[in-house]
Amino acid sequence: MNRGRKPEHCRDSILEMGMELFDRNGYHGTGLKEILDACQVSKGSFYNFFGSKEDFAIEIIRHFQARAFDCWNLQADQPPGCHAARLRHKIETEIQTSQAHCFRMGSLLANLSGEIGAASDAFRNAILGATNRILDALEQDMLQCQQEGSVRTDLDARALAELIWNCWQGALLRVQVEESTAPLSSMVQLLWERVLPPHTGPHKDASPTP
Amino acid sequence: MNRGRKPEHCRDSILEMGMELFDRNGYHGTGLKEILDACQVSKGSFYNFFGSKEDFAIEIIRHFQARAFDCWNLQADQPPGCHAARLRHKIETEIQTSQAHCFRMGSLLANLSGEIGAASDAFRNAILGATNRILDALEQDMLQCQQEGSVRTDLDARALAELIWNCWQGALLRVQVEESTAPLSSMVQLLWERVLPPHTGPHKDASPTP
Repeated sequence: MNRGRKPEHCRDSILEMGMELFDRNGYHGTGLKEILDACQVSKGSFYNFFGSKEDFAIEIIRHFQARAFDCWNLQADQPPGCHAARLRHKIETEIQTSQAHCFRMGSLLANLSGEIGAASDAFRNAILGATNRILDALEQDMLQCQQEGSVRTDLDARALAELIWNCWQGALLRVQVEESTAPLSSMVQLLWERVLPPHTGPHKDASPTP
Repeated sequence: MNRGRKPEHCRDSILEMGMELFDRNGYHGTGLKEILDACQVSKGSFYNFFGSKEDFAIEIIRHFQARAFDCWNLQADQPPGCHAARLRHKIETEIQTSQAHCFRMGSLLANLSGEIGAASDAFRNAILGATNRILDALEQDMLQCQQEGSVRTDLDARALAELIWNCWQGALLRVQVEESTAPLSSMVQLLWERVLPPHTGPHKDASPTP
């Protein structure tokens, strides 16, 4: 007989709540008691799922990355047109619905990198692994854009992926402090309109010097 | 009669130690007891200087920003040449001596933004104020570079300053996890050689597509 919630469902709920708590109060600022209270689980149940608070944080990274990739791939490839335009549209949709999975994943990685990125090899490897998977995906996107001619080819696709990711993570830090998604929106506009496209001639001056 | 350390010297030492501790363990991961033990000061002395742990963190931001700007301005303007080349040289010097003040300031802002950037208005205003002072300084640098013709003018100086700062902060997060300054060095090279210079013609392809 199957009474109550299934274990997997319960595990997912604990991970979801952990994400909320770490996002709000940071890793160190979230005590185990707070996690147990918020999830309404006993210490025994928690340790049945996760070996330690550190394991728990690492599982949150894995869980959210898998969900972020699933959601990203499910997004309809609108509008029609080149891959660069579709990519921009997907990213802008993430920014507008700022509780979306990819947005929250970036935010989790930014916060955990700063707070505990160097705290242990297990944390380092989990964050590094998650970052590399994102960079690999972005690199494939840039390659596709370069092949269709919508993105410059004087820089290799990996370098462009790293540029986009660095800008995104830096702007994300500002979003948290400014409580506005404007730094991310401006950044995407600047990259997609002024940095990524191939140049066919001299720049038109926006602010010509005398 | 002046016995022992001067109060100002003692205050600076506590701020210096606080910076170390916050850098290593984050804001929430650093307890007041740990601060008092590391600084060998009594709770009374600590509260004589700082109203609370939150005030202490805000004073650390102010103290380090002032020192970072002082050190930055004192750096010899080598090599001779255009302002863009001197700026790059200064930034690369910061990266090489990664315990330098500007480097540590960026790191502190990245970590505190992620962990406590949205925790209170006082934190938000301190981080926002520090970030804006850095953006103002970078904007002036970009303006000077645009006037001498070493930086593109199709983007305004503020947008370029924000691009540099976002990239810097994003790469800094990766430096902490990767335990290597390579993400910062690559970022500076890419910006200074491929993104900031004015374009006078089509990009030369590094990886031409068929």
